[in-house]
Amino acid sequence: MSKEPNFDVAQLAHVEIYSPKPEETLWFFKDLLGMEETTREGQSVYLRAYEDHYHHTLKVTEAKDAGLGHVAWRASSKPALERRVKAIEASGYGNQWIDGDLGHGDAYQFQTPDGHSMEILWDVEYYKAPEEKRSALLSRPQKRPLHGVPVRRLDHVNLLASDVTSNKNFLMDELGFRLREHIMLNDGNEAAAWLSVSPLVHEVAVMGDRMGGRGRLHHVCYWYGYPQHLSDISDIFTENNIKIEAGPGKHGVSQAYFLYVVEPGGNRVELFGDAGYLIFDPEWQPIQWKEEQLEKGIIWYGSPLPAEFFMYGTPVIQPAKV
Amino acid sequence: MSKEPNFDVAQLAHVEIYSPKPEETLWFFKDLLGMEETTREGQSVYLRAYEDHYHHTLKVTEAKDAGLGHVAWRASSKPALERRVKAIEASGYGNQWIDGDLGHGDAYQFQTPDGHSMEILWDVEYYKAPEEKRSALLSRPQKRPLHGVPVRRLDHVNLLASDVTSNKNFLMDELGFRLREHIMLNDGNEAAAWLSVSPLVHEVAVMGDRMGGRGRLHHVCYWYGYPQHLSDISDIFTENNIKIEAGPGKHGVSQAYFLYVVEPGGNRVELFGDAGYLIFDPEWQPIQWKEEQLEKGIIWYGSPLPAEFFMYGTPVIQPAKV
Amino acid sequence: MSKEPNFDVAQLAHVEIYSPKPEETLWFFKDLLGMEETTREGQSVYLRAYEDHYHHTLKVTEAKDAGLGHVAWRASSKPALERRVKAIEASGYGNQWIDGDLGHGDAYQFQTPDGHSMEILWDVEYYKAPEEKRSALLSRPQKRPLHGVPVRRLDHVNLLASDVTSNKNFLMDELGFRLREHIMLNDGNEAAAWLSVSPLVHEVAVMGDRMGGRGRLHHVCYWYGYPQHLSDISDIFTENNIKIEAGPGKHGVSQAYFLYVVEPGGNRVELFGDAGYLIFDPEWQPIQWKEEQLEKGIIWYGSPLPAEFFMYGTPVIQPAKV
Amino acid sequence: MSKEPNFDVAQLAHVEIYSPKPEETLWFFKDLLGMEETTREGQSVYLRAYEDHYHHTLKVTEAKDAGLGHVAWRASSKPALERRVKAIEASGYGNQWIDGDLGHGDAYQFQTPDGHSMEILWDVEYYKAPEEKRSALLSRPQKRPLHGVPVRRLDHVNLLASDVTSNKNFLMDELGFRLREHIMLNDGNEAAAWLSVSPLVHEVAVMGDRMGGRGRLHHVCYWYGYPQHLSDISDIFTENNIKIEAGPGKHGVSQAYFLYVVEPGGNRVELFGDAGYLIFDPEWQPIQWKEEQLEKGIIWYGSPLPAEFFMYGTPVIQPAKV
Repeated sequence: MSKEPNFDVAQLAHVEIYSPKPEETLWFFKDLLGMEETTREGQSVYLRAYEDHYHHTLKVTEAKDAGLGHVAWRASSKPALERRVKAIEASGYGNQWIDGDLGHGDAYQFQTPDGHSMEILWDVEYYKAPEEKRSALLSRPQKRPLHGVPVRRLDHVNLLASDVTSNKNFLMDELGFRLREHIMLNDGNEAAAWLSVSPLVHEVAVMGDRMGGRGRLHHVCYWYGYPQHLSDISDIFTENNIKIEAGPGKHGVSQAYFLYVVEPGGNRVELFGDAGYLIFDPEWQPIQWKEEQLEKGIIWYGSPLPAEFFMYGTPVIQPAKV
Repeated sequence: MSKEPNFDVAQLAHVEIYSPKPEETLWFFKDLLGMEETTREGQSVYLRAYEDHYHHTLKVTEAKDAGLGHVAWRASSKPALERRVKAIEASGYGNQWIDGDLGHGDAYQFQTPDGHSMEILWDVEYYKAPEEKRSALLSRPQKRPLHGVPVRRLDHVNLLASDVTSNKNFLMDELGFRLREHIMLNDGNEAAAWLSVSPLVHEVAVMGDRMGGRGRLHHVCYWYGYPQHLSDISDIFTENNIKIEAGPGKHGVSQAYFLYVVEPGGNRVELFGDAGYLIFDPEWQPIQWKEEQLEKGIIWYGSPLPAEFFMYGTPVIQPAKV
Repeated sequence: MSKEPNFDVAQLAHVEIYSPKPEETLWFFKDLLGMEETTREGQSVYLRAYEDHYHHTLKVTEAKDAGLGHVAWRASSKPALERRVKAIEASGYGNQWIDGDLGHGDAYQFQTPDGHSMEILWDVEYYKAPEEKRSALLSRPQKRPLHGVPVRRLDHVNLLASDVTSNKNFLMDELGFRLREHIMLNDGNEAAAWLSVSPLVHEVAVMGDRMGGRGRLHHVCYWYGYPQHLSDISDIFTENNIKIEAGPGKHGVSQAYFLYVVEPGGNRVELFGDAGYLIFDPEWQPIQWKEEQLEKGIIWYGSPLPAEFFMYGTPVIQPAKV
Repeated sequence: MSKEPNFDVAQLAHVEIYSPKPEETLWFFKDLLGMEETTREGQSVYLRAYEDHYHHTLKVTEAKDAGLGHVAWRASSKPALERRVKAIEASGYGNQWIDGDLGHGDAYQFQTPDGHSMEILWDVEYYKAPEEKRSALLSRPQKRPLHGVPVRRLDHVNLLASDVTSNKNFLMDELGFRLREHIMLNDGNEAAAWLSVSPLVHEVAVMGDRMGGRGRLHHVCYWYGYPQHLSDISDIFTENNIKIEAGPGKHGVSQAYFLYVVEPGGNRVELFGDAGYLIFDPEWQPIQWKEEQLEKGIIWYGSPLPAEFFMYGTPVIQPAKV
């Protein structure tokens, strides 16, 4: 690790997902997860969790197939943004500046080596609650919603990639992510990597795409922070025919108390029921999980992950017929 | 806020407290809070929580009176350490380099304007669990202890000061802390300030000392992260004659689910039962609590704080007889 | 205790409360506590929690003053009902048979010595969920509601009485309640008693009315069973201007994890966040709390109870001016 | 259901299990589950959870093979005991009176049709805590232990039987159990039944023994009542090489939040993390799970049960080689 870490990226700002069934996707995020709609424009609806401070953290765009629209990172400052854009441009993965979108100003678009669309930006619009939604809890941008089991904030995004190592390196070299944990197979291949710019174990993970895809989404994760809420939402998912793919259970990697479901549009969504652990050590040595340690790394206790967890992503790739 | 934030301080590394009853203080931290003893030397015992990675996060030193020994900060890098030392020296609050202590190397000693002893350092010694204590959970430095309701890691320190603003400014200007929340009285005085160098709302708080003291300790806080553990340890405190001063309850400030007790040596200890909220926004505008908003800020729900919460600190100052 | 206990009363069936602000009372029970409305008739609205099996467990009737309408007990069988009616009649506290009400058949009305209206009945109407509300969880009469933090079932009722002992004796002698815990003051007076016909510590409590009232209601309690839900609903109460009187906290008596609020109509409502303890021992010796043990009995840990807890009941009696 | 229910059996009093590795079995129950040893005599050790009121609820007896020693029921009164003994004798399944054992007086031994040893008794010895273990919480027979994640009380026992229906009928007809839930296969066979004498959904379950055994034990269950404790003990089991068979997860049947492990002696132990639901309705119609509803009945959410859950019991029967 460099003696002088790079702090130019501050956080995951928002994620855009595509949905072929936008109304059902919105029912899932709004009625069940208690998210709030900020705006609709064109084929897109902008949503936020009740402790998200910006205009939106989720953009749901109607599309033929489920999948990832883009991932947006917020820089630590305007000069930090400029430094990162310069580095990305030099890497050859840069694309172009755009004028922004609803909720933020100028943003620089680029791609991961695997082809996931990303952008980095500085200017953001803050959500301002109308009088009746204003909370006396001043650090909370609005009152806690009375519907569903409301998620609190966007947590992270998990990407499938044809090659983990090159995508990991791109995120580390050009954006300043630190490697927190990774899985190294006995054949020397890196199966997955968890990276962050903050004490969170990850704002982004990269996992090998076993279906041979490129640029696919594994999941977007929202945060509860309380274990009971995973039980509560599981109850509601079960009664409302949302298939729980796995969990509630505890990952060894990241120590996260997790739940995975597929929203009606087809994208996998994870929900976090605790804070896992936080990394404050500036010399943190990445945790390396070897094949023989992996079982506990994937599931520390609780539900085993089904095979589809390792294959399913969006857009969907059908397994070859045997 | 400066466009280019200062990331030179990475974390709260450890805290030293004085105890006139070291054996009872150790019983409290070890038998009830499940902390582990690393070493004893001279009049000091070095302790850590089971998810603390360094040699120790708490040093208990026998002394005539309870109180704060010192607070140690870890820099983000060696050059960052040098930059901070230069700044502290220039501020006039610097003291001297020491060769280090058990568990860490060279450290630079200084004082807050109010006289709290602090140090900043880079080289640390990591805890290495013996074979039988090694956990298959690779991010956990040792197995979870089987005694008490074990705390997971050091969280923050809260200091009493004769003047909040000047001490807050010192921490911001010389160490790079960001102001996250503060209380502004109607007379223009700042009653308390919460500051951090990470997404935590605070690694350090400064509260006005209503007893007219200087350099006193309000409390040290360890982290559970699970609400149930505050109930569990409350049960145990009640049955073992440890007086619960307040809680479990929820602060508005920091959104922390808290419990306050006084350890047998006389120092107040806080325990955190959740993650509160985390600040990732690089442009975070400090939350300002005005007098008329303060009731909810102090207690969002749960136990009211007793009067002694605002007066008691260590070393103890006896209220004047009326 | 008699060698052959009396099992003739099976459970608390429903409670009727009076509200001078029925719309706001309904908003409280429906929007915040997630209760469901079964029917409206005349000045009354019939409600149930989502795991209540009968037509209703709460009847809210518009009235000039807040207070208790009546408490209904379900017998263990038809012959058991007849035996209890005969005993009540013989006690002199009986009143009359009524044809029933929405949700149940013939009921026998009577009064406690203090004048609380009660009834005992056998025939009940079960709630039948419409197709879209039917749960795949067959022991659950309907799906968990998506609004508020839904309570699960009626738990108990707490009555104020001018004399605890005679009301306790009436409940024991005529209805078969067992005394589970009580408070005996040093002057020989019984300050409060908790009684049950099941392993619950109480379906009914009787507390001395310090305001000199007769037949007043202290509170009705609904059950969550999960501690987190008391935090969740506290959050919602605080943001929606429902004053939390006390809690969340842990009673010594009954070991209940409690929360007390006053609904907008003026009646106190308790919410239970755990199962407390259950009594299976058929020779259970009543727990007797003496004055010097009382502090822990009232609050094992958490929020102290404010003075009004011991004075306020419905209908409201204004304290005499000093 | 009979108009006049039979209340002659009050509760599950204790369970005896056999262990070929008594020291390791004791380590499991004492060091991990925080149970307390009352006495040792001969090849047996008597244990109780900290909220169990009697001398013991678990008797661990050294034996060549793991399995069930016996199950003891406490009657509701002395006359109730006599009535039950008469009924059992008349059924042909009676055996003999014994003088009692440590912790209780005269007991009548009998067998289920499948051959599980049982006894019914009235006189019990209460646990009396020594001064230093006495709790100020008067309903708690001793202080909460400081080791492990202490269970609170014995909950139920689950038996494997060659024929579910006849064993269910025996328990209902001779002991007064009520059928609460059961699984009816499409071929008309009853696969499992849950029965109770109290509002608990079961103090005893009977499941069909797919390995063709007779009189085997499926599991003994102890109760926590708090969901977090299943996470806590899972953490400890995982780090101490106790294999978690399934959970934490939520059953549909009984609504229990469960965890299953095999103690080092080979017996399966269940731990309950909530109160499930309680049955107060005296006319309760047994919940009938049909094959097509069964998946949700077995697992409402969380970990699926592995195949061994349906085959493994003690004493162990090895699956035939294919």
